[in-house]
Amino acid sequence: MIKVGVVGATGYTGSELLRLLVCHPCVSVEVVTSENYVGREISSVFPSLGGFLSLSCVKLDVEETAASCDLVFVALPHTESARVVSSLAAKGKRVIDFSADFRLRDSAVYEQWYGVKHSSPELLGKAVYGLPELHRSDIAEASIVANPGCYPTGAILALAPVIKEGWMDTESIIIDSKSGVSGAGRKLNLLFHFAECNESVKAYSIAGHRHIPEIEQEISRLAGDTVKVVFTPHLIPMTRGILSTIYVSIDGGHTGADVVETYREFYKDEPFVRVRNEGEVPSTLDTRGSNFCDIGVTVDQRTDKLIIVSSIDNLGKGASWQAVQNMNIVCGFKESDGINVPALFP
Amino acid sequence: MIKVGVVGATGYTGSELLRLLVCHPCVSVEVVTSENYVGREISSVFPSLGGFLSLSCVKLDVEETAASCDLVFVALPHTESARVVSSLAAKGKRVIDFSADFRLRDSAVYEQWYGVKHSSPELLGKAVYGLPELHRSDIAEASIVANPGCYPTGAILALAPVIKEGWMDTESIIIDSKSGVSGAGRKLNLLFHFAECNESVKAYSIAGHRHIPEIEQEISRLAGDTVKVVFTPHLIPMTRGILSTIYVSIDGGHTGADVVETYREFYKDEPFVRVRNEGEVPSTLDTRGSNFCDIGVTVDQRTDKLIIVSSIDNLGKGASWQAVQNMNIVCGFKESDGINVPALFP
Amino acid sequence: MIKVGVVGATGYTGSELLRLLVCHPCVSVEVVTSENYVGREISSVFPSLGGFLSLSCVKLDVEETAASCDLVFVALPHTESARVVSSLAAKGKRVIDFSADFRLRDSAVYEQWYGVKHSSPELLGKAVYGLPELHRSDIAEASIVANPGCYPTGAILALAPVIKEGWMDTESIIIDSKSGVSGAGRKLNLLFHFAECNESVKAYSIAGHRHIPEIEQEISRLAGDTVKVVFTPHLIPMTRGILSTIYVSIDGGHTGADVVETYREFYKDEPFVRVRNEGEVPSTLDTRGSNFCDIGVTVDQRTDKLIIVSSIDNLGKGASWQAVQNMNIVCGFKESDGINVPALFP
Amino acid sequence: MIKVGVVGATGYTGSELLRLLVCHPCVSVEVVTSENYVGREISSVFPSLGGFLSLSCVKLDVEETAASCDLVFVALPHTESARVVSSLAAKGKRVIDFSADFRLRDSAVYEQWYGVKHSSPELLGKAVYGLPELHRSDIAEASIVANPGCYPTGAILALAPVIKEGWMDTESIIIDSKSGVSGAGRKLNLLFHFAECNESVKAYSIAGHRHIPEIEQEISRLAGDTVKVVFTPHLIPMTRGILSTIYVSIDGGHTGADVVETYREFYKDEPFVRVRNEGEVPSTLDTRGSNFCDIGVTVDQRTDKLIIVSSIDNLGKGASWQAVQNMNIVCGFKESDGINVPALFP
Repeated sequence: MIKVGVVGATGYTGSELLRLLVCHPCVSVEVVTSENYVGREISSVFPSLGGFLSLSCVKLDVEETAASCDLVFVALPHTESARVVSSLAAKGKRVIDFSADFRLRDSAVYEQWYGVKHSSPELLGKAVYGLPELHRSDIAEASIVANPGCYPTGAILALAPVIKEGWMDTESIIIDSKSGVSGAGRKLNLLFHFAECNESVKAYSIAGHRHIPEIEQEISRLAGDTVKVVFTPHLIPMTRGILSTIYVSIDGGHTGADVVETYREFYKDEPFVRVRNEGEVPSTLDTRGSNFCDIGVTVDQRTDKLIIVSSIDNLGKGASWQAVQNMNIVCGFKESDGINVPALFP
Repeated sequence: MIKVGVVGATGYTGSELLRLLVCHPCVSVEVVTSENYVGREISSVFPSLGGFLSLSCVKLDVEETAASCDLVFVALPHTESARVVSSLAAKGKRVIDFSADFRLRDSAVYEQWYGVKHSSPELLGKAVYGLPELHRSDIAEASIVANPGCYPTGAILALAPVIKEGWMDTESIIIDSKSGVSGAGRKLNLLFHFAECNESVKAYSIAGHRHIPEIEQEISRLAGDTVKVVFTPHLIPMTRGILSTIYVSIDGGHTGADVVETYREFYKDEPFVRVRNEGEVPSTLDTRGSNFCDIGVTVDQRTDKLIIVSSIDNLGKGASWQAVQNMNIVCGFKESDGINVPALFP
Repeated sequence: MIKVGVVGATGYTGSELLRLLVCHPCVSVEVVTSENYVGREISSVFPSLGGFLSLSCVKLDVEETAASCDLVFVALPHTESARVVSSLAAKGKRVIDFSADFRLRDSAVYEQWYGVKHSSPELLGKAVYGLPELHRSDIAEASIVANPGCYPTGAILALAPVIKEGWMDTESIIIDSKSGVSGAGRKLNLLFHFAECNESVKAYSIAGHRHIPEIEQEISRLAGDTVKVVFTPHLIPMTRGILSTIYVSIDGGHTGADVVETYREFYKDEPFVRVRNEGEVPSTLDTRGSNFCDIGVTVDQRTDKLIIVSSIDNLGKGASWQAVQNMNIVCGFKESDGINVPALFP
Repeated sequence: MIKVGVVGATGYTGSELLRLLVCHPCVSVEVVTSENYVGREISSVFPSLGGFLSLSCVKLDVEETAASCDLVFVALPHTESARVVSSLAAKGKRVIDFSADFRLRDSAVYEQWYGVKHSSPELLGKAVYGLPELHRSDIAEASIVANPGCYPTGAILALAPVIKEGWMDTESIIIDSKSGVSGAGRKLNLLFHFAECNESVKAYSIAGHRHIPEIEQEISRLAGDTVKVVFTPHLIPMTRGILSTIYVSIDGGHTGADVVETYREFYKDEPFVRVRNEGEVPSTLDTRGSNFCDIGVTVDQRTDKLIIVSSIDNLGKGASWQAVQNMNIVCGFKESDGINVPALFP
């Protein structure tokens, strides 16, 4: 039984995390912090938690949080997060960080995309990118786990098995992602006002989304070479889920069956990645409210394109569930503890 | 560890039940039957179950089901269900029935509302109406548990605490319910075609819905007198959830605080009913994907009306989760085993 | 051809109004005012208007608006509206006001429900409640038309035909309304944040909504006596539409067919009210994007209740389309000019 | 005033067409045919049409339809359509066909993608592909207008302005489209059952959708060379709208401003195509319930990709509204008659 804290508990990743932690067999939640709800019972902020957790939101005090917790989840905006994480790490606490602050290894890339200097560049080398399928053993040793972004999780898992294959063209990658609106968080904005995004699809941050360098870092690492991607996120009128449709050019002669085999081999020991049969395509409803990433592949022989479709829950494998998976690895719990649940269908 | 079967596993109550059973600590699913998917892997019918259950759907064979299971959930249309349930019961199996066949104690009432003769009227006295908050001890002994209808669950729980109070008028009850579309099941019908029910609200079965006698039976029992209700169900463009807004005339002088107290006292030992503070109103999102029934009450002193709002998930407390709660009681498991999870918010 | 202005053009009632006015055969839009978008092209605020209107939003200047317009639509928050409307009226302009400021004839009632003193009580007697089906001839003469609230429009039209019948009980009226989220306007609020209201139904302002006195005023006038109503609004995960389900106690012996006849007779000359056949129930999709109010009635003979269901578009007959209908009457245009269009189905 | 008939009036393209035709200044609807609703008033099938059209659905009789109409819209499944269209054309009637039967000029391509022999290959040369922006003058003379598919309309309009530019690579085209569910029509299928597609995104017909040859035919014609495309359609939980995100490789050195200019020049005389400013991206809500196609372009200078986003209403410019535009051209009416309306926002 470990004691954990959640810093920034009143956003969607925070509430989803609490939902998991209150049911986790090895965890006790000791501290929940908030900016906007200080002094309020967490179950009054989120009535769905009524009966599960009797804690009031407190203003963040790093000292106190460190004193009462073994491990801390930090769900703050970038730059703010870096300061808190580095303080907590300095006190010997293990931290799982939801922000982008420790995902990019190269502070110059961080500064280019985020437009600010990194406050703790010396820690970048120590933090581990928390995608267990790629970095499980490093995560187990990490003091800071940088929990991946939602889009990168779905995109990297979809690309990893082929990225090293000689028969694909690493300059041809196009990632077209469709996300539910909860991915945008709980901050008010006309873009996420019900009547403005209901019954509407829209692309945003075309060619400029901050998840691009994160995707490129990870697949470049796999490829052993610098890889660039085209990435377009879209906002979809639903609450949860990311479907990524990914296009890569391949040599002729490959079949869907081949590629399914390549993917199954790559993920054969992974409990949370499911490769679908040839001809089957995942939908976001298959993974909603779960830690799964479902992947389907199709070969377009007319055009020599491989089309990969991956489905995750942006708050699930794309955020809070993956954070719990990381905690399980960090703490030596069973990796699937508290997250081995089928999606909420329908 | 008991062995269970699910008869009629490929509808929404069936799939939701399987979702719970595969994670339940004391249960092993041995048989899943289907009409339309015989021979297909259940995880190919419901990809969300991939990795959790390796069973193929079989055509229902009562003998075989009885031979391999200790307890059977039956999720078949009414009349069909009665035949299967009575056969299973005759073989000494304990049965939890999702249909309406064993909910009404009086076969004449059944025949009036369902328009068919009941095939096993002799069993009606033995079956127990599976609402644990009202009939827990009877359920523990029952061989047949009639799992309640979705609308009745939300309505009866909302009315039970006041129905015996001398200060309410039992002739004044109006129940206006709003349900997600999954309540209509998986059978194709233009009414539930996406483009016809999206962005639309509609009332249906006004003054004639078959859940009326079920509500009346239970609240009449509580009142010790025959009580009639007006009930109007509505179809809402969402997948899960029932919000029931209930109007009853009361004597003057009562306050919201009083009534909250009455409700809290009534439900003080119930793990799955949450009475909200005065002035708070439940929404369906607070109970989605859970076994909770949340209740809020308001007194309109201008008109001497008590307005009760209850929220459940029609597939949760309104169907499959309550069925698991009933199984837990029947089998002597901890009542909250496998269902003690907060709602999926957002 | 008249010149019109829209004060408060960048909310949803404003944009819907502009959508109609740019297609109206007898109208030229001369001024659009806004608080938040001063200096911006209206078609940049609402790209859907691109190609239809080349005007920039200006800050409201009553003098200039009066100078350039024959008639002004005012879509401002209450109290703000009263000041602007009275200034415009003082300059001899005809005004159609979307706010509640001139809907209630009795300033004491206004002050009780809105919690502020009315700034121009002397005008209350001159303003006309803009429900053409009840006040057509007065509207034609009015200098100030108080465009009705969305809920009152659907509720009053549903109740008007029976309110004077001796066989109904005017103390028994319960109005349960379900509204799309656009009714809440464009102002940011966590309640209307996509992820919070999607897949959720919730009641709000139970027993205290400000549309209550408006409904009571109009049906009391029809009844010739003071009538109170119970009214509960609900928020539904859709953009447009209000379905009101209304319950009234009636004497025994009435049939659905009778009541349909009563309604058809009452509305026989009305172009925008459609009474459905017995057994048919309107849905909000039948009236979305139109000026229609559809009404269906059912008699519950078990309980002697009449259940009336009405459907409108909250931005249609419930706001901007009715405002254009009022303008047509005020200006002597054909009453259906610019609004005689079937609903957008599906 | 011409007399028109609608063959296959009770699907979504049929109902949308009727909605437009009953308001069109130069048209009288004389015949509506249906398979499933013979004998029923069209306004009972679509209550939204109540008060606009008093016609009963009849079984299709080509003779009678030809006798009573000047022009016929045919909205039947492919192959069925070919037979009806050729009969009507043989009788000298002008026909606007919604099916795919006359869209492809080459019957071999038709047979390859549709898996059936074309019944009237001799007419393929006479039919005109009804995209006014490309074929206006031919449409004016056509006896058979093949109304374009919904996906092709959005994709071709998005690609037309650049397809001939020397600086783009015609072998690099990837079209990723997101469609509302009404595009799938009114035929029942579990895929379009509310609870299965709500809150879900899914790709379908990957690398095999029948709109591929239609897109390729038209852009090959423009390019003066054979062009292939990769096309992936997706089903989105909304009713109307198609957003197509299109990726093409371009030479370095081009800017967004350049490309906007190229597009504006190309469409400078088109009333229904709106090219957005640099940096602005259309959403489907901007075109819902209208005949507009909105286009936004972005240049990704990191990867030398041009990303084009187009938005249409699949039942609007993608079907029935475009059909009316074609009728206007064929009949010599003003091209915007009856369809010059802003989108329904929100």
